[in-house]
Amino acid sequence: MNDLARFSINQMTVKQLSLPELVDACVRLGVPGIGLWREPVAAYGLEATAELVRNAGLTVTTLCRGGFFTTAGGLDDNRAAVDEAAALGTDTLVLVSGGLPPGGKDLPAARSLIADALTELAPYAASRGVRLAIEPLHPMYAADRCAVSTLDQALALAEPFPASQVGVVVDTYHIWWDDRAPAATARAGAQGRIHSFQLADWTTPLPAGVLTGRGQLGDGSIDLRAWRERVDAAGYTGPIEVELFNDGLWARDGLEVLEETARRYVRHAL
Amino acid sequence: MNDLARFSINQMTVKQLSLPELVDACVRLGVPGIGLWREPVAAYGLEATAELVRNAGLTVTTLCRGGFFTTAGGLDDNRAAVDEAAALGTDTLVLVSGGLPPGGKDLPAARSLIADALTELAPYAASRGVRLAIEPLHPMYAADRCAVSTLDQALALAEPFPASQVGVVVDTYHIWWDDRAPAATARAGAQGRIHSFQLADWTTPLPAGVLTGRGQLGDGSIDLRAWRERVDAAGYTGPIEVELFNDGLWARDGLEVLEETARRYVRHAL
Repeated sequence: MNDLARFSINQMTVKQLSLPELVDACVRLGVPGIGLWREPVAAYGLEATAELVRNAGLTVTTLCRGGFFTTAGGLDDNRAAVDEAAALGTDTLVLVSGGLPPGGKDLPAARSLIADALTELAPYAASRGVRLAIEPLHPMYAADRCAVSTLDQALALAEPFPASQVGVVVDTYHIWWDDRAPAATARAGAQGRIHSFQLADWTTPLPAGVLTGRGQLGDGSIDLRAWRERVDAAGYTGPIEVELFNDGLWARDGLEVLEETARRYVRHAL
Repeated sequence: MNDLARFSINQMTVKQLSLPELVDACVRLGVPGIGLWREPVAAYGLEATAELVRNAGLTVTTLCRGGFFTTAGGLDDNRAAVDEAAALGTDTLVLVSGGLPPGGKDLPAARSLIADALTELAPYAASRGVRLAIEPLHPMYAADRCAVSTLDQALALAEPFPASQVGVVVDTYHIWWDDRAPAATARAGAQGRIHSFQLADWTTPLPAGVLTGRGQLGDGSIDLRAWRERVDAAGYTGPIEVELFNDGLWARDGLEVLEETARRYVRHAL
């Protein structure tokens, strides 16, 4: 099998590339999948993006992102995100659920708000052929981005819904430290709820704001191959998406970074 | 009861104060306890520090820190830390256990190294009248500082030993995000293994390196009173130590920061 058969590049990894540049690079390098973000898609145009990707024969593995359910008024925007996912032809909308409400200190209450929002959003997404994928974010984001900090918590939020409607994202960067994550991965796989599998490495020191320090594959502390094998063993056969937010990578030539990322994927994850 | 009866100031919170300045400030403000660090103690002199603190009638609630068991050659230094704790008259040595060995990617193996080191160190500490207190550090430190990321993991490492030899540190900054930490706190308390209770608040954005962003009590996202009540409910009756690493606080007048910290403690934790 082609080494890159399951590889998908999340566009944030090479955000210095325009959508046409990215699509062209994927075609030239034999990268079959891309993960998209709403903002650059909107800037290029939703229909234009869908057509560009479709004509190139690429699979859109995920759209990032819906969520932020813990602040008021987000449901309309989440329905729009579902519609955009459907228009792009992807079956998976990634959810970053939101942190504490302003001034809040109650994480369980924030998770309840998230559960309530899913009850509204999941049937709507299902009606559009889109699965919701709850992404647990590293605990360092619990206050301001995502009150869902573990795969166990994400699964608990997903389990009231059919697996075809709501599942989870397994992202090595966010869960690698968690001794309970391997068991949760097996459970998620057995339930058919691994809706996305994403790779990034953990490097230190973290940059200020801790948003743009995700390491290139192989540069950090995560045994990426062990995680790929674990997710495979859980029954997952889908795309493997590489999503890096990294100032150093963004400062370089995008095509070079994409080539490097594909090489690192083969070397460290396959 | 005096509002500050259980209050202890960790000297890192006001590291701009010399040891005599800190001790004098504690006496003037009615602060009965201090947590000390090995480096400033060594700089002032171990015996001189012990005498200074003893003459002022202060209780040394903890000494920070032993640990870093995952890199070679640490055991002699840990025995020295135990000796220093005994000389200072504190019953508690805080352990920051160490992260991955250089180039390592195996967190369970790192935790095994920590367990092995405890087997050597705990009896020695007990022979000197010193309890070891394993501090789980926030998962953002798992790679480079502490492979023990949850209170559950810390307890699992402590449980093979008598509670009088090895226990845990409950530090709100490190565990506030963890939905399993309340149950682990209750278990630790029931076992008599809460050997230190420390407060710091969680504020964002985190600074580069994520070491010096611990928030002043009340400035962040942690329900500190709920944690104090939870730890009390677990049967803990000991000192409550405030340990903040914060560039902003360090830039201010140390006495003013100590006064503020005591006020915040009364307002947000009692």
